Amino acid sequence: MQLANASQEQLNQWEQSLSAEYDAIKAKGLSLDLTRGKPSAEQLSLSDALDGILQQNYITDSGVDARNYGGLEGIAEARALGEQLMGVPSSNIIAGGNSSLTLMYQLMTTAYFFGLEGADSAWQKEGEIKFLCPVPGYDRHFSICEQLGIEMVNVPMTSNGPDMDAVEALLRADSSIKGMWCVPKYSNPTGVIYSDETVKRIAALGSIAGKGFRVFWDNAYAVHDLSENPIKLLSIWDAAQAAGTQDSVIQFASTSKITHAGAGVAFVAASDKNLAGYKKVLGIQTIGADKINQLRHAKFFAVPDSLTSHMQKHADIIKPRFASVLKHLEEAFGDNDLGEWESADGGYFISFDTQEGLAKTVVALAGEAGVKLTPAGATFPYGKDPQDSNIRIAPTVPSVEQVDEAMNVFVTCVKLATVRKALSK
Amino acid sequence: MQLANASQEQLNQWEQSLSAEYDAIKAKGLSLDLTRGKPSAEQLSLSDALDGILQQNYITDSGVDARNYGGLEGIAEARALGEQLMGVPSSNIIAGGNSSLTLMYQLMTTAYFFGLEGADSAWQKEGEIKFLCPVPGYDRHFSICEQLGIEMVNVPMTSNGPDMDAVEALLRADSSIKGMWCVPKYSNPTGVIYSDETVKRIAALGSIAGKGFRVFWDNAYAVHDLSENPIKLLSIWDAAQAAGTQDSVIQFASTSKITHAGAGVAFVAASDKNLAGYKKVLGIQTIGADKINQLRHAKFFAVPDSLTSHMQKHADIIKPRFASVLKHLEEAFGDNDLGEWESADGGYFISFDTQEGLAKTVVALAGEAGVKLTPAGATFPYGKDPQDSNIRIAPTVPSVEQVDEAMNVFVTCVKLATVRKALSK
Repeated sequence: MQLANASQEQLNQWEQSLSAEYDAIKAKGLSLDLTRGKPSAEQLSLSDALDGILQQNYITDSGVDARNYGGLEGIAEARALGEQLMGVPSSNIIAGGNSSLTLMYQLMTTAYFFGLEGADSAWQKEGEIKFLCPVPGYDRHFSICEQLGIEMVNVPMTSNGPDMDAVEALLRADSSIKGMWCVPKYSNPTGVIYSDETVKRIAALGSIAGKGFRVFWDNAYAVHDLSENPIKLLSIWDAAQAAGTQDSVIQFASTSKITHAGAGVAFVAASDKNLAGYKKVLGIQTIGADKINQLRHAKFFAVPDSLTSHMQKHADIIKPRFASVLKHLEEAFGDNDLGEWESADGGYFISFDTQEGLAKTVVALAGEAGVKLTPAGATFPYGKDPQDSNIRIAPTVPSVEQVDEAMNVFVTCVKLATVRKALSK
Repeated sequence: MQLANASQEQLNQWEQSLSAEYDAIKAKGLSLDLTRGKPSAEQLSLSDALDGILQQNYITDSGVDARNYGGLEGIAEARALGEQLMGVPSSNIIAGGNSSLTLMYQLMTTAYFFGLEGADSAWQKEGEIKFLCPVPGYDRHFSICEQLGIEMVNVPMTSNGPDMDAVEALLRADSSIKGMWCVPKYSNPTGVIYSDETVKRIAALGSIAGKGFRVFWDNAYAVHDLSENPIKLLSIWDAAQAAGTQDSVIQFASTSKITHAGAGVAFVAASDKNLAGYKKVLGIQTIGADKINQLRHAKFFAVPDSLTSHMQKHADIIKPRFASVLKHLEEAFGDNDLGEWESADGGYFISFDTQEGLAKTVVALAGEAGVKLTPAGATFPYGKDPQDSNIRIAPTVPSVEQVDEAMNVFVTCVKLATVRKALSK
């Protein structure tokens, strides 16, 4: 389908055949769902041995009774697992509870209300402040900013990560920008891995930004590779050390999409100064995270390379689903300009851009035909996609057959919406 | 020892023999600890069957996969356990993570920064606000207020709970008082159970206080009875329903001192309106608590009355320790005015009041003699006991023999400090 050169008659023909196809799909009464960025039951079962793994021995190697109170930083074994995931010395890692989102929220509220470097450093003391948000991005990041009244500034994503020229220009011009959200590997939702140059330039932002600037580096998909020889993400820890900007980066990771999604262990990695500021506030709200669950996870990954082989099993399950999505997109739009996407090698999402102004229509059409898609706009701050073009596809939960069927509907809806728009011009 | 009628010579004699006794104790090089309000290893072992209890079946009765994301309110089985603990309908209970302190912090920060009834109801909008703190009380409650800059106003504890005449008078005079901390059963640290009248008067405070007033009802020791026929705490849920003040009370409980202290399940119970306000803020910071651990706890207490029989086993372990503390206090101070205490029938603490101005001295003396006590003042807001008389005794962790030895030191230190003070007059 090449719409640009198509005659009115051709467009009408396409519209009629696509409408017929669409009506036929609707008649099937499908109920499919491509919204949920969570593991499938099959993936979750890979970690079922966690229950009972301790054989009721709750004492850590260093003699800590994981059943009792205490230990704001988490047990040594869990922090070592964090080191494996994040490539940061375990002494700069805190192992927390079941949610990295909670850790991000705690760090954000600490920086905003109380200050990571004492009360005078609290962001709220500076009045209106801003955050940079590479778009499309993760809605739960944006919700935190929105709740705190932090103004979000969109920055376009490229195939190398955020547009760093734009980022640097914004920071030089406006010292009220206090931070930036990043999902550096298999970015949610575009699937992009930040290039080495991008990582270095982000690490160096601390030296051009106003005071109190912090990059929130959410490495949610640190080990979630699908290909055999994945591109390696450059260590922002090392890059920040080299640039002398250690305090400007706070990193997050978790086992949520490694073991059990609602019952994993989350990690934060940061400079001594940032961790000290965080712990001061954290110690008011908890005596410590669940150390037993931390110990379970440490035992589960105690054998060297077990994390890698475990993630390979996830990849084996996810790969055919990603392949199905990409095959449908390639077949339908590989030779035309109806849509654009990145070919993700990991993570949980494939991000698709329709022609301008069509995302809402496509999502609505798919919904009426029994295929639930993430609401258009959800990947942008305030739920507003200025182009109305981005749609996040999450294929991990449905079966391969269901993904195939849902994508068939999806491409039909994209085609139909695009042809109808061309006709209405 | 009756110091009031003692001659100078008698006092000197006592001082000499007590000093000799104290020196003999010091020479033993003891290392004992009465500071820690946490379960002993023996108590924790009562719940060791939790690990593996699911037999790797992670699906709840209603078909929820506890391994995956979702469910801000917790699983139905856990909320039912909360109902058992709190006597509140499970529909008004949220089952959370491993810490009721965290739930309290979340409710406090929601009310303070964001408002439980919309943004306009945020306490911070009213400028300087205050909280009533029955004293002595729990230091971690006070730390939350201190962090938020909420001014704490002391209210004396009586053997029936907080001095309600004082509470009501304060609330009538000052609408900037937005809340009050309560540990209604086996109060930390006095061990007092609030009387029925006290509960009713607290439930009714919502009708005399300024807008936005909330009682934080931390029922940490709801089922932690030591005697066979414990006094029943009146239901503040029912009392508030009767008074039409449901929105003014927020209740907390947890299994921390029932199963594993660092890895239990915490609960909040509140009116529909309060829960709606809370969930709005909670949903920004988490996708949900660890449902697997909730399921473990529900299975652990699935058999009717198993909670009661489980708590009986705790009582069997704790009782001899409490008995030892009380025996020493009774023998040393039962016939004189050197100290006062409540005879707690449950909970984790016995609270002792020295004569005015001696708590710090006693704690220091005991410390030098190898018996660690909670720092004097810790049971008061800002760490300041205006009488310098309260000392919290936590006897659960040491063995019965250790408690006996430590209490022997304790009473000697109290006597010595009191005699020396009498001599210095």
